Amino acid sequence: MTSHTIATDDLRLPNGVRLACREGRHTGTTRGLAIGFVQCNLVVIRRKHAYEFLLYCQRNSRACPVLEVTDTGDPEPKRMAPGADLRTDLPRYAIYRSGQRMPDRTSILELWQDDFVAFLIGSGISFDQALERAGVCTTRDRWVLRTSLPTIPAGRFHGPLVVTMRWLSPDQAITATQVTSRFPSNHGAPLHIGDPGLIGADLSDPYFGPPIKTVPPSVVPVFWACGVTPQEAALAAEVDIMIAHSPGHGFVTDVDAASLALP
Amino acid sequence: MTSHTIATDDLRLPNGVRLACREGRHTGTTRGLAIGFVQCNLVVIRRKHAYEFLLYCQRNSRACPVLEVTDTGDPEPKRMAPGADLRTDLPRYAIYRSGQRMPDRTSILELWQDDFVAFLIGSGISFDQALERAGVCTTRDRWVLRTSLPTIPAGRFHGPLVVTMRWLSPDQAITATQVTSRFPSNHGAPLHIGDPGLIGADLSDPYFGPPIKTVPPSVVPVFWACGVTPQEAALAAEVDIMIAHSPGHGFVTDVDAASLALP
Repeated sequence: MTSHTIATDDLRLPNGVRLACREGRHTGTTRGLAIGFVQCNLVVIRRKHAYEFLLYCQRNSRACPVLEVTDTGDPEPKRMAPGADLRTDLPRYAIYRSGQRMPDRTSILELWQDDFVAFLIGSGISFDQALERAGVCTTRDRWVLRTSLPTIPAGRFHGPLVVTMRWLSPDQAITATQVTSRFPSNHGAPLHIGDPGLIGADLSDPYFGPPIKTVPPSVVPVFWACGVTPQEAALAAEVDIMIAHSPGHGFVTDVDAASLALP
Repeated sequence: MTSHTIATDDLRLPNGVRLACREGRHTGTTRGLAIGFVQCNLVVIRRKHAYEFLLYCQRNSRACPVLEVTDTGDPEPKRMAPGADLRTDLPRYAIYRSGQRMPDRTSILELWQDDFVAFLIGSGISFDQALERAGVCTTRDRWVLRTSLPTIPAGRFHGPLVVTMRWLSPDQAITATQVTSRFPSNHGAPLHIGDPGLIGADLSDPYFGPPIKTVPPSVVPVFWACGVTPQEAALAAEVDIMIAHSPGHGFVTDVDAASLALP
């Protein structure tokens, strides 16, 4: 009972979440954990692809806001979580080899190479607390969808923009636009509100979430650029190896989410 | 007289400024030209140094907000000024070879190589119009100074933060803080107000502007991160060749400065 209580408390703080991941005690989603701290998407690729990938992120910063890049071969994110280890401190990793997704792992210690570079990319999970405080529920009705909007290519990296969609009431859609506009390092304001067809969002085949048959009444679909976008680009690039967070299983940093918000 | 009138009108628009530079008719500062359009600092380096330099900019985005990076070997900034040529369309270029500054040039056509990459970096000149509209004069009392604040290194790139300083009245200092906070892609809010000694700003040896003996009464020095910072870093890195805009002689884009401002 004591250990259970400690574990629960742990997951309210960044270091507690990371330690639980490192020790294999937590392998589930990070959504709702360490609320109020910045959570990041992860992309790990070889140094030889790092310039084109960083350029891809620069050209598509709405979807891929880069918050930190580690030195080559170094798994420690020295600025956002000193002492952490990106090889063990996420609950679940997605592994891609030459454009194919392999089984997820809960550690990448055995895969890590001296020429690996890790990118921490802003995630919309970071503004969940701000949305909740403004009365916008963040725990349900959320999908990740491909669109027909192209991203700007950089070298071999290219592909469609991926979005996060929420059903919101009209007044929540306005509030959510106001709140998320203050978080440009975490995808910022919505890029679309309303008809999914206008951005070619494919409701029948979501990346994450159940297929959608009909739009419910009295709600508006609101779309944000999504951190899954660079995973699509790396898949399309068919790099020999790329490691990412498994969607919804991010890296929890020591950075106060409010510190990334505009005044 | 007619040609004089045409030339004057030309310099109010981005393409007019670029054409005047390309044809050698304008070799002076771009400050005050094409008011309301985004002006950029330029850094050109070899592809082999481009990853470390882009990473340096990512880690020091206050001083080095990257707005566009051209494809390797391509001198056309396709997103911010389609059809322009970065080899000819700035009035004056600073040339650095292995850490030494060479004589300025008014064209780099003869220096351009297939492995060159051009970085367009946000400049405080872009918010001059917004400052003027808010009643803050931008045409006098401006210096560029080295500080003792280090930037975050990336590979061989490192060096001190360089700042732009203005003397402002206390109420103008507040207004200028509010206005420039809306321009995060152009250095954003001041990083310091008041005592230059607290950031190690060396008033006796400015990078740009006359040496300062005493701080005048009834004004506050206000300091912004400056786009000269990456030139210092490239000098310190002693790359074999680096080309930049000559300070105050920027690249005028087709982008409306207001479009980069936050709401």
